[in-house]
Amino acid sequence: MNSAMPFRDPTTPGAPIIPRPDWDRAPWNRWTFQHVREMVPTTQVWRGLGPASPLPENLQDIDAIGFEVDGRSDTIGGFLQSSYADGMLVLHRGKVVAERYLNGMTPRTPHLSQSVAKSVVGTVAGILIGRGLVDPAAPVTHYLPELEATAYRGARVQHVLDMTSGVVFDETYTALDSHMAQMDVACGWKERMDPNWPGHVWELILSLKASECAHGASFRYRSIETDVLSFVLQRAAATPLAELVSRELWAPMGAQEDAYFTVDPAGYALGDGGFNATLRDYARFALLHLGGGVIDGRRIVPAAWIGETRTGARPDLFGGVYHEVLPEGAYHNQFWVEDSKRRAYMARGVFGQLIYIDPEAEFAAVILSSWPEFINVRRTRTALAAVRAIREALSR
Amino acid sequence: MNSAMPFRDPTTPGAPIIPRPDWDRAPWNRWTFQHVREMVPTTQVWRGLGPASPLPENLQDIDAIGFEVDGRSDTIGGFLQSSYADGMLVLHRGKVVAERYLNGMTPRTPHLSQSVAKSVVGTVAGILIGRGLVDPAAPVTHYLPELEATAYRGARVQHVLDMTSGVVFDETYTALDSHMAQMDVACGWKERMDPNWPGHVWELILSLKASECAHGASFRYRSIETDVLSFVLQRAAATPLAELVSRELWAPMGAQEDAYFTVDPAGYALGDGGFNATLRDYARFALLHLGGGVIDGRRIVPAAWIGETRTGARPDLFGGVYHEVLPEGAYHNQFWVEDSKRRAYMARGVFGQLIYIDPEAEFAAVILSSWPEFINVRRTRTALAAVRAIREALSR
Repeated sequence: MNSAMPFRDPTTPGAPIIPRPDWDRAPWNRWTFQHVREMVPTTQVWRGLGPASPLPENLQDIDAIGFEVDGRSDTIGGFLQSSYADGMLVLHRGKVVAERYLNGMTPRTPHLSQSVAKSVVGTVAGILIGRGLVDPAAPVTHYLPELEATAYRGARVQHVLDMTSGVVFDETYTALDSHMAQMDVACGWKERMDPNWPGHVWELILSLKASECAHGASFRYRSIETDVLSFVLQRAAATPLAELVSRELWAPMGAQEDAYFTVDPAGYALGDGGFNATLRDYARFALLHLGGGVIDGRRIVPAAWIGETRTGARPDLFGGVYHEVLPEGAYHNQFWVEDSKRRAYMARGVFGQLIYIDPEAEFAAVILSSWPEFINVRRTRTALAAVRAIREALSR
Repeated sequence: MNSAMPFRDPTTPGAPIIPRPDWDRAPWNRWTFQHVREMVPTTQVWRGLGPASPLPENLQDIDAIGFEVDGRSDTIGGFLQSSYADGMLVLHRGKVVAERYLNGMTPRTPHLSQSVAKSVVGTVAGILIGRGLVDPAAPVTHYLPELEATAYRGARVQHVLDMTSGVVFDETYTALDSHMAQMDVACGWKERMDPNWPGHVWELILSLKASECAHGASFRYRSIETDVLSFVLQRAAATPLAELVSRELWAPMGAQEDAYFTVDPAGYALGDGGFNATLRDYARFALLHLGGGVIDGRRIVPAAWIGETRTGARPDLFGGVYHEVLPEGAYHNQFWVEDSKRRAYMARGVFGQLIYIDPEAEFAAVILSSWPEFINVRRTRTALAAVRAIREALSR
C-alpha cells in the first residue's frame, strides 16, 4: 500500500476492498486521503467562475538541502521519500520554488487536510468578524441559545476560536469511548454502533455538559470547538458552512479547483477536519495569509484580523504536551503559533498535514501526508525542521 | 417536503434527519436527487478545461400549450406544477426554447438521472466501438473471462447493449429480496443487512448463474446488463468508468459543470443508474445526439453508431408490460426507441427522468423529476404526451 492505487478495480484478483470502519486509517489512508469523496458523503465548495489567482514559479532544486533533527541528519529529498508525504509546495517571495507530488497525487487531486480545516474555518470567521456579522467578545449563546444547556454556557466566541473554553472534550483519537470516537460516528465517518451515541455533530455538541476549568483559563485542543464556531458562523450568516467557505474564501481567493467537505448525517459540513482541496489551492490559502489577507491584489481577509492572529496569541495559556512540538508556541484564532515573537503560524492536521506561514521570511510550505499514525512527535519535529531548513536555504 | 429544503440545518428544531435506508425514496427524494453526493460516496466526472459548448436560446412561453392524455386535458404549465418536475429543458432547431427549474433546483445543480446513466454509458460504448476497442459481436467473456462461470457465458456485447441476454435478473424495485434489492446494497446506496448478499456490484454479477431463455431471444429490462457493459468498457480501455465518461464524452462535448457517479464499496462507478449532472449538460448530451454525434462542430460519437442506434432496433423482441408506455417501442444500445420507424429515442430513469430525442423534428426535451413512485405508467404517458405536444406546437 506504499505504492499508488490509482484504480480500484474489483475485477482484479486480490484487489483490496477498503474495510469501511478503517477507511481513514493506515494503510488505507495512503489512498483514501486522496479519494475521500469515494468513501463518505461530501458537499461541494465551489471555486466560482473567476480565473484562478496566479501562482508564479521560480522552481529550484531543494532535494539536497540538509537538516538535522533530534541528532539525526537528513536531506529534503530523503525527507520526502521517508515521511509518507503525498505532496509538498514551497512559496518564497510570492513564487512557487518547489511543487512535488508523490504516492499517486496530482495537481488536481483534492487531499484531506484533517484539522487544517480549522484554520480555513477560522479565516472565514475573521472575514465575518471584519464585516461585523460575528462579535468575538459575544457569548456563543448569543448566536446559539441552545448551548445555554451545555458547558458552553458563558463561553465567548473568542474562547472557541482559541480553544480555551473549559468544556470537557476527550480528544483521544485511538480510544474506543472518547468524545473523539463519538465524533467519528457523529460526523459520518464511521458507522453508529451504539444507538445512545450522538447521531450527528450538533447532537454531540448538545451532549457536552461537563466543565474542567473556567472558560479562558487555559488552552486545550478540542476539535469540537471548531464545530461550535462553525455553527456560530452558519447561524450568523444564515448560510451553510460549505457555501460560506466558497463565497467568502475559496472563490474570492481564486482557487483553481472546487474543494469539498465531508458532511454528517444531518447535512453539517465537518468544519473541524473534513476539508479537501488541491495542494495548489492550499498554497493559495498560504499566499493569502502571507499577503496579510490580500491575494492577487484583492483584499479577502481584514488586515486587522490577520495582524491580531499573528500577534495576539497567549503563550501563557499554552503548555503541557503541546510544548513537545512547539516549546514557544500558542494557539490562536484556529492557528498554531510557532513562536508569538517570530510571528510564524501554522495550520496543522493529524496524519501529517501542515501549512507553515512565515510572513517575515516571505515563506510558506504546505505538506500533505498520509502517516501511519494520527500523531507522531518525531515526525512533526522532523517536518518542522525540514521546513525551517528550506526557509534558511532560500533566505541565504 | 414538496417545498425546497435548500439548507439542512440540524439546529433548526424539527429539521428532518433523512433516514439513511430511505434516502432515495419519497418524500426525501424531492431533496436528495439534487444532493446525492451528500448522501453516498461519489466520484467526479471532470468537465475538463475547455469552454462549455454553447446553448443558444430562443426562449418561448410554452406554459399555455395544451395536451390530452388518457381522456384528461392539461397544459404544460399545469404539467410542470403537478408532475414532481425539478427541471425541464426543451431544444428545438439547435436552440433552447424553454428552461425551467422547480423545487429548489438551479442551473448548477447536479440531478440524479437514475437509468439515464445507461444511455450515457451506451454512448461511451459507441465511441469505443467506433475506435475498435470494443467489438459488439464479441462474447462478453472475451473481455471478462470471469463471466464464463455465470449465465453470461455465450452472451455477446450487443446482447447486454440491448438487454437481450437470457440471464435471470429480478428487476422488481420494491421487493425486499429481488436482485434489485441486492443491487441497492451492492451499489452502496443501502446498508448491507444480510452478510450473504453481494458486497459490491462485481460480486452481484458473478452471482448470476440462472438463465430464463436463450441469449438474444427477447428483451427484458435488466439494470445489471449495463454494469456488465461498464465492466467490459473498463477492461477494454483499462480506465475506470467515471474517467472514461469524462475523457470520451463529458469533456469533449463541452459540459459546463463536473458530473459525478455514485461508487460502490469496491470503487465501481454505478453505470446503471448512479449518474448526476446539470439540466444543461443533459441538454448538451441530447444536442450531441440530435447532431448525429456532432456538437459545436466537433464529432464525438461515430455517425455510424448513432445511425445504427436510430434504425437498428428490434421491435419484435419487445413486448409485454413495456408496450403499455411504448406500443411501437424497442430497446437498443441502451436507449428506449419510441417507434423504430419514426427514429425518436429516449433515455429514461425511474422516478421521472426523461431525455427525449427526435432528430427528424430537430427536437429534444429533458425532464428531471422526483416522483413518489419508481414507476408510474400514468405519469410516464403524461410526460410523453406533454413532450409530444410541445414538439407539435413548435413545429407548427
